[in-house]
Amino acid sequence: MALATIGVCYYPEHWPREHWSEQAAMMRSGGIELVRIAEFAWSRIEPSPGHFAWDWLDEAVETLAGENLKIIMCTPTACPPLWLVERFPEILPVDRNDQPRRFGSRRHYRFASEVYIDESLRISQAVIDRYAGHPAVVGWQLDNEYGCHETTLSYSEDDGRAFQIWLEKRHGDIGALNQAWGTVFWSQEYRSFAEVGRPNLTVTEANPAHQLDYWRFASDQVRHYNAKQRQLLASSQGSDRWVTHNFMGNFIDFDHFAVAEDLDVATWDSYPLGFLDQGWFKEEEKLRYRRIGHPDWAAFHHDLYRAVGKGRFAVMEQQPGPVNWAESNAQPLDNAPAFWGMEAVAHGAEFVSYFRYQQLPRAQEQMHAALRLPTGDPAPAWATVTRLAEEFRNLDANESVQAPIALLFDYPSCWAGAIQAHAPGMAQLESAFHYYSAARSLGLDIDIVSEQSALDGYEFVIVPGTIIIDPAFVARVEAAGASCLMGARSGSRDEHCALPETLAPGPLQSLIPLRVLAVDSMRRGARRSFSYGEKNFEASRWQESIASDLEPRIRCDDGAGLWYSNDNHHYINAHVPAEFLTAVMQEIFTQRDRAYRPLPEGLRIRRRGSLTFAFNFSPEAQRLEVRDAECVIGARDLGQGEYAVWQSPRD
Amino acid sequence: MALATIGVCYYPEHWPREHWSEQAAMMRSGGIELVRIAEFAWSRIEPSPGHFAWDWLDEAVETLAGENLKIIMCTPTACPPLWLVERFPEILPVDRNDQPRRFGSRRHYRFASEVYIDESLRISQAVIDRYAGHPAVVGWQLDNEYGCHETTLSYSEDDGRAFQIWLEKRHGDIGALNQAWGTVFWSQEYRSFAEVGRPNLTVTEANPAHQLDYWRFASDQVRHYNAKQRQLLASSQGSDRWVTHNFMGNFIDFDHFAVAEDLDVATWDSYPLGFLDQGWFKEEEKLRYRRIGHPDWAAFHHDLYRAVGKGRFAVMEQQPGPVNWAESNAQPLDNAPAFWGMEAVAHGAEFVSYFRYQQLPRAQEQMHAALRLPTGDPAPAWATVTRLAEEFRNLDANESVQAPIALLFDYPSCWAGAIQAHAPGMAQLESAFHYYSAARSLGLDIDIVSEQSALDGYEFVIVPGTIIIDPAFVARVEAAGASCLMGARSGSRDEHCALPETLAPGPLQSLIPLRVLAVDSMRRGARRSFSYGEKNFEASRWQESIASDLEPRIRCDDGAGLWYSNDNHHYINAHVPAEFLTAVMQEIFTQRDRAYRPLPEGLRIRRRGSLTFAFNFSPEAQRLEVRDAECVIGARDLGQGEYAVWQSPRD
Amino acid sequence: MALATIGVCYYPEHWPREHWSEQAAMMRSGGIELVRIAEFAWSRIEPSPGHFAWDWLDEAVETLAGENLKIIMCTPTACPPLWLVERFPEILPVDRNDQPRRFGSRRHYRFASEVYIDESLRISQAVIDRYAGHPAVVGWQLDNEYGCHETTLSYSEDDGRAFQIWLEKRHGDIGALNQAWGTVFWSQEYRSFAEVGRPNLTVTEANPAHQLDYWRFASDQVRHYNAKQRQLLASSQGSDRWVTHNFMGNFIDFDHFAVAEDLDVATWDSYPLGFLDQGWFKEEEKLRYRRIGHPDWAAFHHDLYRAVGKGRFAVMEQQPGPVNWAESNAQPLDNAPAFWGMEAVAHGAEFVSYFRYQQLPRAQEQMHAALRLPTGDPAPAWATVTRLAEEFRNLDANESVQAPIALLFDYPSCWAGAIQAHAPGMAQLESAFHYYSAARSLGLDIDIVSEQSALDGYEFVIVPGTIIIDPAFVARVEAAGASCLMGARSGSRDEHCALPETLAPGPLQSLIPLRVLAVDSMRRGARRSFSYGEKNFEASRWQESIASDLEPRIRCDDGAGLWYSNDNHHYINAHVPAEFLTAVMQEIFTQRDRAYRPLPEGLRIRRRGSLTFAFNFSPEAQRLEVRDAECVIGARDLGQGEYAVWQSPRD
Repeated sequence: MALATIGVCYYPEHWPREHWSEQAAMMRSGGIELVRIAEFAWSRIEPSPGHFAWDWLDEAVETLAGENLKIIMCTPTACPPLWLVERFPEILPVDRNDQPRRFGSRRHYRFASEVYIDESLRISQAVIDRYAGHPAVVGWQLDNEYGCHETTLSYSEDDGRAFQIWLEKRHGDIGALNQAWGTVFWSQEYRSFAEVGRPNLTVTEANPAHQLDYWRFASDQVRHYNAKQRQLLASSQGSDRWVTHNFMGNFIDFDHFAVAEDLDVATWDSYPLGFLDQGWFKEEEKLRYRRIGHPDWAAFHHDLYRAVGKGRFAVMEQQPGPVNWAESNAQPLDNAPAFWGMEAVAHGAEFVSYFRYQQLPRAQEQMHAALRLPTGDPAPAWATVTRLAEEFRNLDANESVQAPIALLFDYPSCWAGAIQAHAPGMAQLESAFHYYSAARSLGLDIDIVSEQSALDGYEFVIVPGTIIIDPAFVARVEAAGASCLMGARSGSRDEHCALPETLAPGPLQSLIPLRVLAVDSMRRGARRSFSYGEKNFEASRWQESIASDLEPRIRCDDGAGLWYSNDNHHYINAHVPAEFLTAVMQEIFTQRDRAYRPLPEGLRIRRRGSLTFAFNFSPEAQRLEVRDAECVIGARDLGQGEYAVWQSPRD
Repeated sequence: MALATIGVCYYPEHWPREHWSEQAAMMRSGGIELVRIAEFAWSRIEPSPGHFAWDWLDEAVETLAGENLKIIMCTPTACPPLWLVERFPEILPVDRNDQPRRFGSRRHYRFASEVYIDESLRISQAVIDRYAGHPAVVGWQLDNEYGCHETTLSYSEDDGRAFQIWLEKRHGDIGALNQAWGTVFWSQEYRSFAEVGRPNLTVTEANPAHQLDYWRFASDQVRHYNAKQRQLLASSQGSDRWVTHNFMGNFIDFDHFAVAEDLDVATWDSYPLGFLDQGWFKEEEKLRYRRIGHPDWAAFHHDLYRAVGKGRFAVMEQQPGPVNWAESNAQPLDNAPAFWGMEAVAHGAEFVSYFRYQQLPRAQEQMHAALRLPTGDPAPAWATVTRLAEEFRNLDANESVQAPIALLFDYPSCWAGAIQAHAPGMAQLESAFHYYSAARSLGLDIDIVSEQSALDGYEFVIVPGTIIIDPAFVARVEAAGASCLMGARSGSRDEHCALPETLAPGPLQSLIPLRVLAVDSMRRGARRSFSYGEKNFEASRWQESIASDLEPRIRCDDGAGLWYSNDNHHYINAHVPAEFLTAVMQEIFTQRDRAYRPLPEGLRIRRRGSLTFAFNFSPEAQRLEVRDAECVIGARDLGQGEYAVWQSPRD
Repeated sequence: MALATIGVCYYPEHWPREHWSEQAAMMRSGGIELVRIAEFAWSRIEPSPGHFAWDWLDEAVETLAGENLKIIMCTPTACPPLWLVERFPEILPVDRNDQPRRFGSRRHYRFASEVYIDESLRISQAVIDRYAGHPAVVGWQLDNEYGCHETTLSYSEDDGRAFQIWLEKRHGDIGALNQAWGTVFWSQEYRSFAEVGRPNLTVTEANPAHQLDYWRFASDQVRHYNAKQRQLLASSQGSDRWVTHNFMGNFIDFDHFAVAEDLDVATWDSYPLGFLDQGWFKEEEKLRYRRIGHPDWAAFHHDLYRAVGKGRFAVMEQQPGPVNWAESNAQPLDNAPAFWGMEAVAHGAEFVSYFRYQQLPRAQEQMHAALRLPTGDPAPAWATVTRLAEEFRNLDANESVQAPIALLFDYPSCWAGAIQAHAPGMAQLESAFHYYSAARSLGLDIDIVSEQSALDGYEFVIVPGTIIIDPAFVARVEAAGASCLMGARSGSRDEHCALPETLAPGPLQSLIPLRVLAVDSMRRGARRSFSYGEKNFEASRWQESIASDLEPRIRCDDGAGLWYSNDNHHYINAHVPAEFLTAVMQEIFTQRDRAYRPLPEGLRIRRRGSLTFAFNFSPEAQRLEVRDAECVIGARDLGQGEYAVWQSPRD
């Protein structure tokens, strides 16, 4: 069995029927094995209410199947047709300014709309009835990119009513809500759930617990919406096929772990250059990695979605050329589309599906590159990707193995961090990525975990400033006997977005006895210097004042504690440079005899079974030797955008 | 009698009753003498319409009184409870986009709402009836922070109708309005007051006179609202207690001089670090003074509110640690809370009340530090503040004396400046502060004055670019025999936001005969150089072309006049560096034999009676000697955040 | 006959009648010959519905005529009076957020409002009936500054209905629309025109074809509105007078070529300093040219409006001093108002009308300078402008001659570029200006052309990245035998904002056989280096991957092609520095033996008949010699803001 397969996103409805056979044959000849279809095809499947047009989709499915291509069939609910919006305008999402958002692009529905849930189940059932048993259909994707374009949170009056019911379930009685939210502050008290409004358009910021509950409510609607579609499949003829949803990168608006409980596989959109342009990276990084992406960004998401998918993940949309949606849209290096595909597989992806087969010369995404040009000719990525397909076939399947490091990621903590930012540059995703990137530069593999994950077997657990900590998670850290490295802001709020009764880091105090008395939130440019070994560093953005009987392992030059240790557990109470984090980790790894390998900037390695993969993101050429292994793809010397695969003798 | 007293803001409703005794005893033991309560407690005082719950507040009052603490009682009208909003949704303020703002935070009312005025008088009367005669209640605060969160200006249809009535009172007939506003321009003419709309949502900027009148109208609503509450107290059993309102810093949305005509004392919010982060200061100043605040910012406000309070002022909310509401929220230097308290008193504050006793771990301000931690333990500021209390007790009361310099500040001029900014960096508050800061760096005390203030006894009057000048003010300058230093933009508009008939500086032409023909408004980076003495300087932002028979005292290198003098009166027609302003002032002071003392950057002194206070804001240590005086607190050498008090023999 | 005349914008309604005679006499004495009046006077002409007040305007006209001043009479429709808005609130424009915009400034009407069209025709007919035959009235201006303050596009429901009718006319049947827009993408399909909405408030970007059609629709409304007023004049007593509209600078919201088909002369607003402050120029250019304007900006617009006016154009509003509407409003150099006037005439302006006679000390534009101060005294510009009037009289009229270079400009391409920007800094106006500026620095005159313009006689045609290319235009380039220089992004979309079937540059492929496969859209700071001759350059912002059998004339250092040539035709596939563009042009000009003259930075020359004009914008003094010509105004040596005129012997 091959290491992985190549897929493609394909829209037969975009092209004349007479092109389909040639397109399918071309996919096949290029080594493509999987084809995702139909996620935006509702208006073609049901052109008017209750009138279905299956012939074209039947023909498309047969054409693909005729080339032995396997199909990922989608429920087409990401884009309700206009006739549905006209009938039920109440399905439209409402923005923060109470303004309904219009038909004319996509994702114009509210997750909490009961009528939309009914309609989405009706169309999904029809598609499932038609294709669930088809032998070419190997998997299902439900809807597409939940929450894209800020559609997770909607503020209609109907949403408000659903929120009240949700609140009652969560809090039981209004007194409990008043207590949990602290509504006595500013006379915000409620006398019944029917009085609680939406948290938008308040005079100044709404109560953070109000905001956090609204976000939880919205996330629960996504989960509920997804679970309902999943149930249709579970009771269908195709119940043996895997089911996925296509998630996004750099996106935290709902709890992906919760939604994925109703999925078999997690898939996501990997657009390394669009993310680099939009992200918080330093300007020099944006220029240095302009045409290949940041060395840790796709990797971070692969590891995250492997966790979301409970071990099973894939890339459903892989960037093949310039995208259209960033402020600037760089052209990837020639080899980049294959480089990214191989990287995904190194992290355990089961397949890599390029977006998309052929560039449509019209509509919103006409400037988004594809594997084939609008004319049908091969696009620049075509040759590269077909070569990758061959490489996949030449390698055997390899299971991922558990990494030595578990890094915690938690969606509600992201929301809490956004609701009260308190300092610039302290978003949860950025903090998690910062720790992730430091550990990766030491050549180690990382598993991302949720607060519900089992932790047995991990030597190290990183809590990269995760705001809301479940005591059960802490108990599992202790039970696993792992060393825990905790960053500033960890455990700083409870589930109601309130300060812990014992102050931060709350439940983590059972690992390390200290309390955060105050935070020095620092503007850009503000610094507090310290030294470690021979080197000088500077804390920035955030530094906590600590009360503890522990003597700080390191102090700032002004005397404030910075690094506290309690046996195997460590707390860094400030935002510190990656270089210092790496030094801390080296000390911690050494403490437990865990070998590591500091890598030059831009070089990254990742293991999967008996394979070791190396990727050079750096503009400078890099050389890598892997001991006791044979280089089976690529070479020791890697230019920018080049990769190598090393085979060790099987264990 | 002690020099001043320490107060605290306290919210008994936030804590279980069984904590109150201990909290009160702790306050007492820490030297706190004054406690402000109840400004946000309406929902606890009147949990449902017409049903009052006095028992808890009675108990809180008695508990505090039992420790001999004195109480500042508040009317709780800053936060109407939800049941009131449900009954009367028309009380909600409406933003610039005509969008009503929701319940869920605070200040969700319009000042012009007649039903809200009635309701606020009803609840205030109830509180007054209950506590006005209580011996522990020594003063009253009406409402809290009028206008916070941009609530001064509201744009509902009801506001629009009230505005029409107001306009008719102001202008008498519609022809007068048309003439004053110049509505012939762009065919904006009105045929009746009923036709005049609100100035928001116009296609391009609304008529500046329309905008200025709307702002005056809004300011008058605040005044009217405040006066009504004051009237209740005047006819109550507690009519002998002083009455205040708690104003804010860096805030000009209504005429504070006018509102305070109905108050005995002005109090304000002093948050030096939040203001520094948000303010227009240079980036290097924001970093240099990050943990202590700008050397002149709190001082400027103390002097301003001393003027607003007709000589009587205090700090109602003093920053004790990091705040939660700036983009970055620095942790003050350890000694800063006391430093700021002593500085307030140096400027004449009658008390300094810290915000607040104990940090609430829930709701919007949970990250706002207090004197006690959420756990009840002392917060970092506690020890510092209790030491300050002792220092206050060890010093005798001292009257402020009139300063040699009067600096003009005018709220309608601020509005006029905001309505037509014309150049970057020329906001009235910034211009006033620029002159204030230059004069303070020469070691002189300053009184801030309004256009209605008496000016007898002042040697110098500074008009720091004040836009709208009352001729009566100019007459008082002349009568006082003061030297007048006028900055660019002074007298550049009349009361209707129109150019003066004789051009700028309008009424000030009786002090100095010149006319402004045009303004060179300069983008950031643009400069016009000049020299004075041996030094080179650069004008920026704003420079006027002047027609005058006076020969300029200084010209720019390109020949344009810059500094004009007419006997004792001086006009600087450009935005100039503080260093040059200081040089000009030195020359002017010398002219009148007024001694001054140039201070190193960050060191400030202030006199109060026989005491001289010194404060070092600079990261560098500073030494100060005060002749013929004894250092009674602190020392000659001051590190950053340290202060000293020197006692001269009593006059 | 004099070379040109001086005009002035005058508002008799702003001043007491008793001032009018003196004002008119003063104009006359200052050499002013033309007076524009009444464009904002509706509320004075018709103070209440149906009641006209002609006496004042009659008197104003007679007063001006009495001084032999010629009058440009305006239809007063730019500012409907309040009574009209009260009667017909549906005339108000609606912004992108569906919010109606209010009365209280100007341009508060929608072009598509049928009731407003009727009303504007009614008032225009009344003014025409009154004055069309008056001998002093020499020309008419219809309305003023169409589209100012973003009023071209309005989003009311009525606009939406008119759009549906417009769409039906354009596309014929809904299937054609679905095909042209590619609505199959994202299930955006429509079943009837009645279903198509406005493109605002969609969840994410609306279909670009939807947006482009909405923009075309909006532009057509302007054209229709203008044509209707023009028809009134055509059938009036004054049908022999010329008719103009006063257009704006830096403004592309409707198709000026189309609107001007119903006009005799194009006039525009020339405010060089306001535009410099607001524009995309580099910061150092903004400072270098702060008081004189960018060397090519007014020139570009003069050449553009000469094209819009089919050879006839003038400046209706010329900046005389600081304006009030930019963020910073610099004071022009003393000589600048005359410098700009002479420059306009060098480019063929028939007259230069200064805005305005006297500064009104009230209302929105009180800080906008004029020729006379609010007091009636001469403003700084007065003497300069009167001297210019004399210079005009001392020079004979000279016809413009056709330039050797035609530079293409297309409004729908501007809209397409704004709808999908794809990269920073690639707005069509900026790209066109970039090529224009490079060519001008070689001392050559340029004609701007539309896609409908005749091209006979041009040696060079520049297509500066124009997005939508009409094949007929390409045919005319070929027929003219011109060399064509094409910039990146040329021909990259078809009329429906879709990629051309043959890929970019679409129809231009008949000039040069190549295809654009992908675009590298570069963030600020990203660069791709190349060299030409001895010099190194860097491409930025945008670079295309090209497939072609042509060998690139120049490649980037990374191997990518940059400059392709096919006989006389050239394609530059990247955004390149002006210095490189100039080098390319020198090579192309040399190829066809076209002489050119590289000019020092900031020096510009322009020919008109036998006259050669030189203008120095540079802070450095410049010397210019013109062979076989006599310097009749100014001198060889020019300081900043100085000009010279050289007379050659007549041909």
